[in-house]
Amino acid sequence: MREFILLSRKGYTTPDFKDLRSAGRLDIVCACINSSIFLSHKIRKNVILNVILNGPSNPPLCICVNSAKVYEIRSDEKSIGEILRNVIAGRVHAGFEKSKKSFQELLREKEGRAIYILDEKGIDIRRMEIERDPIFILGDQIGLPKKEEKFAMRSAISKVSVGPLRYFASHCITIINNELDRRGLDG
Amino acid sequence: MREFILLSRKGYTTPDFKDLRSAGRLDIVCACINSSIFLSHKIRKNVILNVILNGPSNPPLCICVNSAKVYEIRSDEKSIGEILRNVIAGRVHAGFEKSKKSFQELLREKEGRAIYILDEKGIDIRRMEIERDPIFILGDQIGLPKKEEKFAMRSAISKVSVGPLRYFASHCITIINNELDRRGLDG
Repeated sequence: MREFILLSRKGYTTPDFKDLRSAGRLDIVCACINSSIFLSHKIRKNVILNVILNGPSNPPLCICVNSAKVYEIRSDEKSIGEILRNVIAGRVHAGFEKSKKSFQELLREKEGRAIYILDEKGIDIRRMEIERDPIFILGDQIGLPKKEEKFAMRSAISKVSVGPLRYFASHCITIINNELDRRGLDG
Repeated sequence: MREFILLSRKGYTTPDFKDLRSAGRLDIVCACINSSIFLSHKIRKNVILNVILNGPSNPPLCICVNSAKVYEIRSDEKSIGEILRNVIAGRVHAGFEKSKKSFQELLREKEGRAIYILDEKGIDIRRMEIERDPIFILGDQIGLPKKEEKFAMRSAISKVSVGPLRYFASHCITIINNELDRRGLDG
């Protein structure tokens, strides 16, 4: 499985929010779920997206989306947002799991895996060898906090860049998925 | 400028709709606006997205989004959807223009430009020379109608593929933008 970890500093950990955007940019989380798991007319079978929500009122919350187990999902933000609200509230949705893991706890679980940190100053992904079952770490609209980046760098193979400009986290995921598809990695 | 043309067979041409998805998949149009014009923390200055809406009740409608002129826009689907509804209703939004052009009328306007049609069986974009000011034509969730594809092929340079799998139109745009960014084309 290819895996992504998105750290959302402000994403709400309560289901009591008016809209996704004002809930600490949960719209970004929805966009990342969309770009992680969807192909045209089907769902990928090879992606895990872990989202760490560190916003109010009960951080941290870790939501793990396993694309091989997801069903009953539509690709639009509104539909994904409703699922997200339900999962945060503790209701069951196939393929979604909620836990109280922090970013560092999650990373400790992944010890021994090939970890890459997204960074515009990293090595170009096209010129990089990517090991099997890779994990890519992405920050939100603010980027990774220094402390968490430092912690992640201890176990990371390298920083990796997807292009010459700074992209949305969801766009980075699309580009990485495409690169791995091209290599036939975990396809 | 790099340019995209999205043909939405069912996208509503009336602002009277309950939600984006049930309005002939206007959520797809919003996702394509997002992937066309946004970089992290800024708006691209080099992209035009033309959307042809052929759904009820007043087709065709052509909405042209010029990223160099767009402001007051947020990247989430809900915010973009509100702008889309306003533009369909005839209200002004910076960077958005509405007309009654059909797909074929729009293409006739682009005569002489380098036109590429997205197709999974096309030539891999990475192995392809791309001329300046390229235009990429994308279908919606159903694909391009045969008639329109045939018409477009008369002026197209080639069919182009972005990878070994079938992707959402919005994901194709992200991948194409990234490829052009890497080449420094219309950057």
